[in-house]
Amino acid sequence: MAFRVKRLGIAGVGLIGGSLGLAARQSGLADHVLGIGRSESRLATAAELGAVDSWTTDFASGARECDVLYLSAPVSVIIEQLRQLSSFAKTDLIVTDAGSTKAAILAAAAGLPPGIRFVGGHPMAGSEESGVEAASAGLFGGATYVLTPDAGTDPDALAAVTSLVKALAARPVVMGAGEHDAAVAVISHLPHFLAGALVRMADLAGEGVGRLAAGSFRDMTRVASSPPVLWRDIALTNRKSILSALRGFRKALAEAERVLDAGDEAAVEAWFQESCARRKRLPVRKEEP
Amino acid sequence: MAFRVKRLGIAGVGLIGGSLGLAARQSGLADHVLGIGRSESRLATAAELGAVDSWTTDFASGARECDVLYLSAPVSVIIEQLRQLSSFAKTDLIVTDAGSTKAAILAAAAGLPPGIRFVGGHPMAGSEESGVEAASAGLFGGATYVLTPDAGTDPDALAAVTSLVKALAARPVVMGAGEHDAAVAVISHLPHFLAGALVRMADLAGEGVGRLAAGSFRDMTRVASSPPVLWRDIALTNRKSILSALRGFRKALAEAERVLDAGDEAAVEAWFQESCARRKRLPVRKEEP
Repeated sequence: MAFRVKRLGIAGVGLIGGSLGLAARQSGLADHVLGIGRSESRLATAAELGAVDSWTTDFASGARECDVLYLSAPVSVIIEQLRQLSSFAKTDLIVTDAGSTKAAILAAAAGLPPGIRFVGGHPMAGSEESGVEAASAGLFGGATYVLTPDAGTDPDALAAVTSLVKALAARPVVMGAGEHDAAVAVISHLPHFLAGALVRMADLAGEGVGRLAAGSFRDMTRVASSPPVLWRDIALTNRKSILSALRGFRKALAEAERVLDAGDEAAVEAWFQESCARRKRLPVRKEEP
Repeated sequence: MAFRVKRLGIAGVGLIGGSLGLAARQSGLADHVLGIGRSESRLATAAELGAVDSWTTDFASGARECDVLYLSAPVSVIIEQLRQLSSFAKTDLIVTDAGSTKAAILAAAAGLPPGIRFVGGHPMAGSEESGVEAASAGLFGGATYVLTPDAGTDPDALAAVTSLVKALAARPVVMGAGEHDAAVAVISHLPHFLAGALVRMADLAGEGVGRLAAGSFRDMTRVASSPPVLWRDIALTNRKSILSALRGFRKALAEAERVLDAGDEAAVEAWFQESCARRKRLPVRKEEP
């Protein structure tokens, strides 16, 4: 039988939460989708767009009504919500989240009572856009969806969340929170910082940016437009790994600078040849959705 | 009347030169396209693929046969070819080039005799691919095509090369060589170095690159695969501007690191907000082809 939820609560009906709501309502994955948030107007928009059946601004009462609760607010809000849930008497609630960093969230979830079963998750979908207006039922289709169970994770809850992920046509990948955070620091968080530093260079290019290649430069710096509050939380909850990635990157760049500054033809060519070789060695995704 | 060349010589029949040959032969822009290069087998491939009508490995004799000569080898080869042309007695030859840096090439062209009229150019088309096998007649369509005339440029030659650019459906943009080199250092050359430094970080991400987001990380580092010899020449002939861009970028990144290291919520959010604001201020290309 297909996976089905009676009452699915979505706390944070933005790009990710809104897309989940649309997918759940369109596929019949949930009998009822309850939107939980802080802004009445944004929740009303979510309802108008068909992402939720009903909504509330009261997190506690909303959470009590659900069988599965999906936390998709910025990481700091998810952590605060997990703390609130820690004082809940409710039993038989499955909670999962969509936070981009996992160790800090798992630490907050460690305080949950036994009746509330948590599974950490990170859908690697989305864009620099935000808000339910940018949401779409197909957002998760084909995307990698990381699940980070630990020793305390209930196997049935993990199975249920895995079914949810599969119902969204995403590709579940199980790994430890620490492994996840270290990897995304390099492949996702570092590039966000690079885009932010790169837009700060535009002035140096003078009018050339506009006259020459606005297109490609705009593409490269696209993620610099991502929501600042979301990224503040990501940066601060994965600070150590990101700092290590930033330091490593600056070292690699300083080496390039040294080679170019020295101006030795063979050494400069070797630097680009090494780039080429390393690019070729990058792993290609083995499993396909 | 449409622009037409009797004998078009293309020295360097790779991605750019091959695409020009294909476009010129398919559109009837040239009566005859002569490929000039160093490798007989590559020139034979170019002929098989329809990029040239005939070919020679003798640069001097090839150049003597042409009305318009298009130099599309790596920058160091273009400079060497301009030096060779400086001792030519031939009159009425228009020479243009496709080099990615312009000041060094214009300096070499300053030694040409009066009968050889040079116009510097840079088609902002292409990819990390190389070779005539990757060439296509439509490569220039809609692309920005920089022309860098200086005080010594013959107006008729500039008009002819502008017509050639328009015949390729590219968008001619006239600017000084220095302005061009400073702009591309930031919007094109710096990002190549960033991609090269980024692939060097993959090991730090462990297996995560393969398990998580091979797709997006591969996209971001795509240009690291560009031909090393081509980029060695670009780097060395635009060394000063690139070094300045690299230093500016490292400074911007060090500032991000400092902000993240201090861990102040408001300051981290402000850093991302500034990224957002600067991205929004990036000029959008005004003129369309």
